[in-house]
Amino acid sequence: MPKSVKIFSPATVANLSCGFDTLGVALDGKGDTMIFTKTDKNKVVITKIKGANLPYDINQNLVGVIAQKMLNESKADFGLDIEIYKGFIPGSGLGSSAASAAGTAFGVNVLLEGRFNTLELVNYARLGEEVACGSPIADNVSAAIYGGFVLVRSTDPLDVISLPVPDDLFITALHPQIEIKTEDARTILPTKVPLKDAINQWANVGALVSALYSSDYQLLQRALKDYIVEPYRKQLIPHFDDLKKAALQAGALGAGISGAGPTIFALSKGEKLSYEVLEAMGQSYKNKGIDFNIFNSKISTKGVRLI
Amino acid sequence: MPKSVKIFSPATVANLSCGFDTLGVALDGKGDTMIFTKTDKNKVVITKIKGANLPYDINQNLVGVIAQKMLNESKADFGLDIEIYKGFIPGSGLGSSAASAAGTAFGVNVLLEGRFNTLELVNYARLGEEVACGSPIADNVSAAIYGGFVLVRSTDPLDVISLPVPDDLFITALHPQIEIKTEDARTILPTKVPLKDAINQWANVGALVSALYSSDYQLLQRALKDYIVEPYRKQLIPHFDDLKKAALQAGALGAGISGAGPTIFALSKGEKLSYEVLEAMGQSYKNKGIDFNIFNSKISTKGVRLI
Repeated sequence: MPKSVKIFSPATVANLSCGFDTLGVALDGKGDTMIFTKTDKNKVVITKIKGANLPYDINQNLVGVIAQKMLNESKADFGLDIEIYKGFIPGSGLGSSAASAAGTAFGVNVLLEGRFNTLELVNYARLGEEVACGSPIADNVSAAIYGGFVLVRSTDPLDVISLPVPDDLFITALHPQIEIKTEDARTILPTKVPLKDAINQWANVGALVSALYSSDYQLLQRALKDYIVEPYRKQLIPHFDDLKKAALQAGALGAGISGAGPTIFALSKGEKLSYEVLEAMGQSYKNKGIDFNIFNSKISTKGVRLI
Repeated sequence: MPKSVKIFSPATVANLSCGFDTLGVALDGKGDTMIFTKTDKNKVVITKIKGANLPYDINQNLVGVIAQKMLNESKADFGLDIEIYKGFIPGSGLGSSAASAAGTAFGVNVLLEGRFNTLELVNYARLGEEVACGSPIADNVSAAIYGGFVLVRSTDPLDVISLPVPDDLFITALHPQIEIKTEDARTILPTKVPLKDAINQWANVGALVSALYSSDYQLLQRALKDYIVEPYRKQLIPHFDDLKKAALQAGALGAGISGAGPTIFALSKGEKLSYEVLEAMGQSYKNKGIDFNIFNSKISTKGVRLI
């Protein structure tokens, strides 16, 4: 067994328009790098954090909370030094906390010689979401751990389904530099929704799953609609409608809010088109007085992994 | 081209617990038989109806309404005599009107040399649902026309997806001899539903579609839950909870209300088990003071067809 492991844990897009609190997908190339090193100190120490301003206190940083719990519950006879290299900033809506949480669950488990199964890792990683946003939501962490598309069928008990990834699918993400707290993005939602809209929504979730299995890009396009959440949350994102329109006019299959926002994602068939969508989204958002960054990524079939 | 065609159009189960107004499936062996014969009379005549007490007036019987409209819109130079042999009674929740409607759309289209495509046939058949219950719902007619499992992604515009059928799936249906009007079954539903329940519901729709593609019977079992509709509609069906419990205890993957009811369906893996489920459901419902009939069927991969 190695004394030290280095892992990469991907950014993720949750919800995917129709699948609020249910669907998630992992991105390629964008994510956190973390190094976990066994020590004799019998405690967890976060020795380095780069790329974001996060607490070193292991009871306040979700990485520390998860690592301690895993060591305690497995009665480990070692401690850990942990280095965190954030590859993207918290509060983007791209699963920043989930990437660190999934990375921790995965990395610690390697040093524990793989004693926990994948679903148990999702459950540990969910603790991190609870630390970060008050709720043990599972869509981002599941996508980060499984890779590809996931469907969280149930959170209690946890039931995660790994879905197929069509070959030629790319995602464009534009992150306006504004802050939306996940809590605010949740509070803005109604507690009850029209049955009519809910029916449209679940028909689209079913259609999206079918589109992934059959690599039917046209069906995917028709299914990427959000009747329930987007009408509320888009109010928190300046110029959302224009940006979405720009993505769709450029040929994106669909566009919507990534997780709780403010990042807006677009899905495209083919890398070339995805760059046209990126260009159109960038053009649409420049000169709006809001800084942003924008990037393209292939959908990753791999989740968190050793590097 | 033949002067006369004989068709079989299957009974169907709509909703399938999680997929209210979205999912449907066709049954094997149970359905309507109809004979369509070209005439020189330039009008549609229903010459025979067996198995149910339905109007001969072509403006009141959905079969007449659909047939006339198809002949008119295709400027046909012939009339039709139609014989209807109902294989199961209206008002059961097994898509009786849908079977006749799908049968008519299909049969007339054969005599029109197949000028309408499958989606157009669903649209004609939906007219029948509008005549029968006031709303052009598409789940039963889509299942009857396509066969197997279908997902109605949208009704406007109509978008129907054909889903895979696992090999070894059987359905048991118990029809209590009580009347539930589809209209009443719709009125009892709330116009708004808790977002929390809606999320559970669409997660299960996605899971059910995944289970069909992957022939994952255990996942199918977990997905066959209804958070939204069953709690209301089961009030219209005496002893529903006991009956469902009996089906599940006997090993059914799931059980619920077929369409608007009152028929209760159960899905089972394997024919042998489906007969045990049938036995348990029958035992549960006997001596309750309500007459019923009960039958088993394989899921049919074929929809309406020439015989």
